[in-house]
Amino acid sequence: MSPMKKALEVAQEALTRGEVPVGAILVKGSEILALAGNRVEGDEDPTAHAEILVIRQGAIALQETRLVDCDLYVTLEPCAMCAQAIAHARIRRLYFGAYDPKGGGVEHGAKVFDRETCHHKPEVYGGLEEEKSAQMLKDFFQKRR
Amino acid sequence: MSPMKKALEVAQEALTRGEVPVGAILVKGSEILALAGNRVEGDEDPTAHAEILVIRQGAIALQETRLVDCDLYVTLEPCAMCAQAIAHARIRRLYFGAYDPKGGGVEHGAKVFDRETCHHKPEVYGGLEEEKSAQMLKDFFQKRR
Repeated sequence: MSPMKKALEVAQEALTRGEVPVGAILVKGSEILALAGNRVEGDEDPTAHAEILVIRQGAIALQETRLVDCDLYVTLEPCAMCAQAIAHARIRRLYFGAYDPKGGGVEHGAKVFDRETCHHKPEVYGGLEEEKSAQMLKDFFQKRR
Repeated sequence: MSPMKKALEVAQEALTRGEVPVGAILVKGSEILALAGNRVEGDEDPTAHAEILVIRQGAIALQETRLVDCDLYVTLEPCAMCAQAIAHARIRRLYFGAYDPKGGGVEHGAKVFDRETCHHKPEVYGGLEEEKSAQMLKDFFQKRR
């Protein structure tokens, strides 16, 4: 299974826990270092986005604060918090699913990686499995209304 | 002791642990909800900035992901990661010490709170105990070179 398909599975699991359905996976070569869905509600932690969780897990797994040669897959365009965390962690490549014009911080809004204050810019690939990611989020927010 | 002076003490403690000397404190009215210094190295966690740590602790203390009516004091201008976390947590007021032209995300670079993708903007007061905060950081980085 492709890493992004796996991330979608994890997003689906987050959905069943009542969380905003976003999933992330951190890989190094062919090894999966970490997998996580959004846990903001479950962990009562406003910073517990999927990306932050896999970065934390990955750093512990590698015993390094810089995740050199690691790639992160996430089903939604990261917000500014997660984008800057990705930069701090020196992630090599970022692959994301749906674009997020309302809350994204990579291609929208803060555009964190495009600023002089950002000291590491990963390679960025957006739009992988975009429709499935976007549909899952759309269904979630429609039900909540 | 003023909250910012307390945050400076916590920054000093972070320094003795070999961390970048930044300290933060989260308050609600006259109650201190959380105190933390940078723990990136000690926790082996690239996201363990002082602001993220006090937000996490505060959310657990209040059993709420939205820290309504809470104010955050930090000795250095928050980076984009921490600024967006502050927005997610709905912090009421942000007070910071030294301005950070190289890595800040509030008054510099990503200017997170000024973007349409930011759905909560705290009141922001910069430059409290600015010189002491800046000097501590300057000394730290000069020694590391």
